[in-house]
Amino acid sequence: MTDHNERTVGILGGMGPEATVDLMQRIIRLTPALDDADHIRCIVDNNPKVPSRIKAIIEGGGEDPGPCMADMGRRLEAWGADFLAIACNTAHYYYDAVREAVHIPVINLIDLVANHVKDQFPELGKVGILASPAVAMTGLYTERFRRLGIEDIWPDPDHQERLLNVIKAIKSGITDANVRADYQTVCENLKRKGATAAIIACTELSALGGQLPVAALDAAEILAQEIVAVAKNRKDPV
Amino acid sequence: MTDHNERTVGILGGMGPEATVDLMQRIIRLTPALDDADHIRCIVDNNPKVPSRIKAIIEGGGEDPGPCMADMGRRLEAWGADFLAIACNTAHYYYDAVREAVHIPVINLIDLVANHVKDQFPELGKVGILASPAVAMTGLYTERFRRLGIEDIWPDPDHQERLLNVIKAIKSGITDANVRADYQTVCENLKRKGATAAIIACTELSALGGQLPVAALDAAEILAQEIVAVAKNRKDPV
Repeated sequence: MTDHNERTVGILGGMGPEATVDLMQRIIRLTPALDDADHIRCIVDNNPKVPSRIKAIIEGGGEDPGPCMADMGRRLEAWGADFLAIACNTAHYYYDAVREAVHIPVINLIDLVANHVKDQFPELGKVGILASPAVAMTGLYTERFRRLGIEDIWPDPDHQERLLNVIKAIKSGITDANVRADYQTVCENLKRKGATAAIIACTELSALGGQLPVAALDAAEILAQEIVAVAKNRKDPV
Repeated sequence: MTDHNERTVGILGGMGPEATVDLMQRIIRLTPALDDADHIRCIVDNNPKVPSRIKAIIEGGGEDPGPCMADMGRRLEAWGADFLAIACNTAHYYYDAVREAVHIPVINLIDLVANHVKDQFPELGKVGILASPAVAMTGLYTERFRRLGIEDIWPDPDHQERLLNVIKAIKSGITDANVRADYQTVCENLKRKGATAAIIACTELSALGGQLPVAALDAAEILAQEIVAVAKNRKDPV
C-alpha cells in the first residue's frame, strides 16, 4: 500500500488545533492529485493539551512544553512517520527537545523561512515579523535573520500587545471584523517602521488569512510546500 | 497534561483527505473553547493510500481495504486513542474489520445516523440518500433504515452516476459551478421521488457544503457532534 517513493509526514499539532487543520488543508491544495491516492499520508497529533507556549515563555513558571512535544515526536516516529513537522512557530523554541527525542529528520520552520527569504527575496533588507510576543522574546527569528544579513522589524509594544490579543481571539474562535481591523493596524505599524515585507510567523494568523497592507510571506505556506516536496521525494528533509 | 475527564479520539481518515480535514474543522467548531486546551485531542491518520473503496465495491477485484483499515485502527489504539471514528460512510462496509482489530469502541456512523433520524425526525417516512453508489450497493443504510421503519430513496441510475462523478470531481479538487449544479440536479431528483429530507452520506459531499433544495441531514456533522460528546465525557461511545 505505501508508495515507497513517498514519505509519510508526522505533524505535531494542536498549537492551536485550527492552525493544524489549516496546514493540512494547505498540504492538500499544494499536492497535484486526481484521486485520493495521489495525496500524501499525514499522521497528525492534533493535541491542544500541549502546555501553553505563551504561558511558559511570556509569563514564566508554566509547565515546560518540551517533554510533551518530545513524547508526541516519539509516538509519531513509532507509528511510522519518515519525518516530522511542528505546526507552530512559537513551539520551535522547543525544537531541540523534539529533535533529540527521535531518529528521523524534523523540519525546522524557522531555518526554512529564513533561508526562503534569503533565496527568494535577496533584495529584502528589512522584514517585519507578525508573531506572538513569545517568538520575539525567544529571539528565534532575530538570530537567524541577522546571521543572513536581514534586519527584522517588530511591531511597537502597544501593537505587539494588540497582535497577541488578535492571536488569543483566534484561539477562542473569534475572527470578526474587529479582530481583522486590529491585525491590519499592526501591519500598518510595521510598514511605517520600514518593513518592505512581513513574515506571517504565527499559524493562527496564517489560518485567519485575508489581504494585508504589506507584502506577506506566510510561514505556514512555506512549511506546507516543504512538506509536500519532501513527502513526494523531490528533496531530502533539511 | 491529559485531562482525565476527557477522551482522545482516533480518526481513520484520508478517504478522502479533504473530507477528514472537514471533519476535524467541524469538531473544532462544535467544541466550546476559550483557549487551545479546551479543545479535544484528535489523533488522525490522514491516509489517502487506503485501497479504493469504490474500486473494491463497485468494480470488484480491487485490493481489500479491510486489512489496511484494521492496521490503522491498531496503530491509533497503540498510540493512545480511547475510541475510534471512521471519516467515510462507504468505508463502513469494512467496519467489522476495524472493530475486531481493536479493544476500544469504534463509532458506527451508519447506526448513529439511522438512530439520529429516528429520534430527532420521527415523522420522516421517506429519506433520500446522497452517497456513492458503493454505499447503495452495500445496503449499509437500507438495512438500518428498514429496521427502523424508514424508507430510503436513492437517485435514479443516471442521477446516481452523476453523483459519483460529483464525488470523483471533489476528490480531484474540482468544486466549480458545474459540479455544484450537478449536485443540485441530483437533489431535485430525490425530491421528485418523494424524499422529504436527504442524508448527506458521503464525507466528500459534506465537505462541498452549499445550500441544497431539500432539507439535509449531514452525516459528517452528526459524527462530529458524537465525537465531541464522547470525548468530553458527556456520553459513552455506543
